[in-house]
Amino acid sequence: MATVRILKDEELSPEAAEVFADIRATRGSDFVNNIWRSLAYDPPLLIATWERVKTVMAPREDGLDPLTKELIYMAVSVANGCQYCVQSHTAMARAKGMTEAQHAEFVDLVMAASSTNALATALQTPVDDVFEVE
Amino acid sequence: MATVRILKDEELSPEAAEVFADIRATRGSDFVNNIWRSLAYDPPLLIATWERVKTVMAPREDGLDPLTKELIYMAVSVANGCQYCVQSHTAMARAKGMTEAQHAEFVDLVMAASSTNALATALQTPVDDVFEVE
Amino acid sequence: MATVRILKDEELSPEAAEVFADIRATRGSDFVNNIWRSLAYDPPLLIATWERVKTVMAPREDGLDPLTKELIYMAVSVANGCQYCVQSHTAMARAKGMTEAQHAEFVDLVMAASSTNALATALQTPVDDVFEVE
Amino acid sequence: MATVRILKDEELSPEAAEVFADIRATRGSDFVNNIWRSLAYDPPLLIATWERVKTVMAPREDGLDPLTKELIYMAVSVANGCQYCVQSHTAMARAKGMTEAQHAEFVDLVMAASSTNALATALQTPVDDVFEVE
Amino acid sequence: MATVRILKDEELSPEAAEVFADIRATRGSDFVNNIWRSLAYDPPLLIATWERVKTVMAPREDGLDPLTKELIYMAVSVANGCQYCVQSHTAMARAKGMTEAQHAEFVDLVMAASSTNALATALQTPVDDVFEVE
Amino acid sequence: MATVRILKDEELSPEAAEVFADIRATRGSDFVNNIWRSLAYDPPLLIATWERVKTVMAPREDGLDPLTKELIYMAVSVANGCQYCVQSHTAMARAKGMTEAQHAEFVDLVMAASSTNALATALQTPVDDVFEVE
Repeated sequence: MATVRILKDEELSPEAAEVFADIRATRGSDFVNNIWRSLAYDPPLLIATWERVKTVMAPREDGLDPLTKELIYMAVSVANGCQYCVQSHTAMARAKGMTEAQHAEFVDLVMAASSTNALATALQTPVDDVFEVE
Repeated sequence: MATVRILKDEELSPEAAEVFADIRATRGSDFVNNIWRSLAYDPPLLIATWERVKTVMAPREDGLDPLTKELIYMAVSVANGCQYCVQSHTAMARAKGMTEAQHAEFVDLVMAASSTNALATALQTPVDDVFEVE
Repeated sequence: MATVRILKDEELSPEAAEVFADIRATRGSDFVNNIWRSLAYDPPLLIATWERVKTVMAPREDGLDPLTKELIYMAVSVANGCQYCVQSHTAMARAKGMTEAQHAEFVDLVMAASSTNALATALQTPVDDVFEVE
Repeated sequence: MATVRILKDEELSPEAAEVFADIRATRGSDFVNNIWRSLAYDPPLLIATWERVKTVMAPREDGLDPLTKELIYMAVSVANGCQYCVQSHTAMARAKGMTEAQHAEFVDLVMAASSTNALATALQTPVDDVFEVE
Repeated sequence: MATVRILKDEELSPEAAEVFADIRATRGSDFVNNIWRSLAYDPPLLIATWERVKTVMAPREDGLDPLTKELIYMAVSVANGCQYCVQSHTAMARAKGMTEAQHAEFVDLVMAASSTNALATALQTPVDDVFEVE
Repeated sequence: MATVRILKDEELSPEAAEVFADIRATRGSDFVNNIWRSLAYDPPLLIATWERVKTVMAPREDGLDPLTKELIYMAVSVANGCQYCVQSHTAMARAKGMTEAQHAEFVDLVMAASSTNALATALQTPVDDVFEVE
């Protein structure tokens, strides 16, 4: 259960409805997922968040490819333990072509990183001088 | 300062020295960074960790490319707040060709993901049924 | 499902029942929420925890106001990803007068903080000398 | 040491210099702290981040007061273990009038919240039905 | 709901079936819990993970006793907010003899540690020189 | 650098000095580490925290042994990324007899737990019914 109401289309304010229209147009799909419906009670934050996410996920010249971007999003979400975000971005990564083998490779990486993160923290390993940016 | 001694080459046990030789051969570089030197006091764990990392980072057929793998490693390390891991994997990503623009795009993504992770947790947004794996 | 039994009033030990009576008296409400019912199996820890929380949340001369205190509690709970705590403290903040606009401002702040936390960690920004306490 | 270069005023691009000018004007101080200097290598993200933070921290009608906002920022930063953010926002909270007693009350709250977060997670306490938003 | 399918015995690949047979033999029980069933879609990672966990949990000469090992596992899982892991390792600790009083002592410790972790981070307490490993 | 002043013995208030005397008597050592010196600016919280820690760490009849308790404290501290706490509790565990082999076994466990925590979160593995407490 959410700490706010999950708004249906017919309950949206005009500003929120406009954002939903842009989400639908940008994604080419009529489906608007719950994160936007739970945020719709606050149109200014809904607008700011959607604009930010849209900009971040938009392709850039010589930039990262769309699947890599979803995998980075998923990695942060797993490490932060965000259930909703893991579920939604795994689904989006699949929609962008993530194969079962790539998912398995991702899980393997996230496990190895979590494990060596714990190692470096437990041993308080000092940063090597050569890593310094000149 | 570390919670264990950072071993120099001449202090290594024979088993640890063997792992260091393999690290050097695998990476084609004489440099062995501190995470391995801090773990060298425990040869069985050094061996297990190096074998695991080597396997995870090795290229797979139809697998993720090496830079994407470093970016996923970096993303987990940032979210876990592991200073050593952020420093070392950012350096490794640069060595594998990460441009300044790609680094900036990565930072943008990690910030957006952290932000929407907090959003979904604060609102306790319920997972959409359509995300279910059939 | 909990990892311990959630005790009903009639299952309480005398020491636990005394704490429940104090919770009811302090809050002026007959309702005792599940965190206390799940902790009731261990009366000494129940007593220590309730005394600590009661002291922390009690008004202090020239101290923070009750709503600010709930918002700080909520902020920590979101960042730690504690579902129960987010739900219970959001409800308590509302009971203490949090408006919908204040909730939205809180969510905005928590998102911004999470985002710039990730930024500072990803860039390993060094602390400015001027922040030093003299 | 940072993973990027910390730019001095004379190294800024024109777009970054413009943001720095706005930071100085908004805060009424010539000092620009390192988080902005470390982000200055990427003007679009610098602009987006500064605009977001400026909007979030700006006073709203019937909104939270400036010190409460800093305390929420600090609370998230402590829970996320972000050293830079704890240092900078503690300094900013003091600049906005946080007394030693308020700081102590804040620390007390963050400790209590962290402790009961761990409690609820260890016991997997189920959310009470009454917390549901109707 | 999981982000992958939870495989039943009759859906396992031959390699996964072999791991399940070893889990059953090692534990002396026919029950195989969901973490292995959710990982079974990727036999190489299933094998690597099971071998690692089996090695880590196996008794060592002059090593930690089995219950202490489960308690450490539980402590990490609580701090990382991993619901599945808290549930499964609490059950396993009980199966290995954890009493109600020991569970309560564990919860007390995890709460105290979480609380003083927040304290040290909020105050940015510097590490004492005497803790240095010579 | 700390966000508060680290008090020397001659700067303590009478109430703080009394706590320091009890720390010295309880531990049988003249050394008082920085966490208490950084907290000494707030005597009520210093007293509450020391009393809590002293109670938690005191031996209980049929309770966990002192080294196990330090290991649980260390495990939480690693997972929370608390540098001060990892350093201080590793030193205390050594003072209570932790051998190099036990430290290595601890590190191995923390790495495995962090890794399988990430696994369960990435796959969103559902909790098995049999783990339910009846």
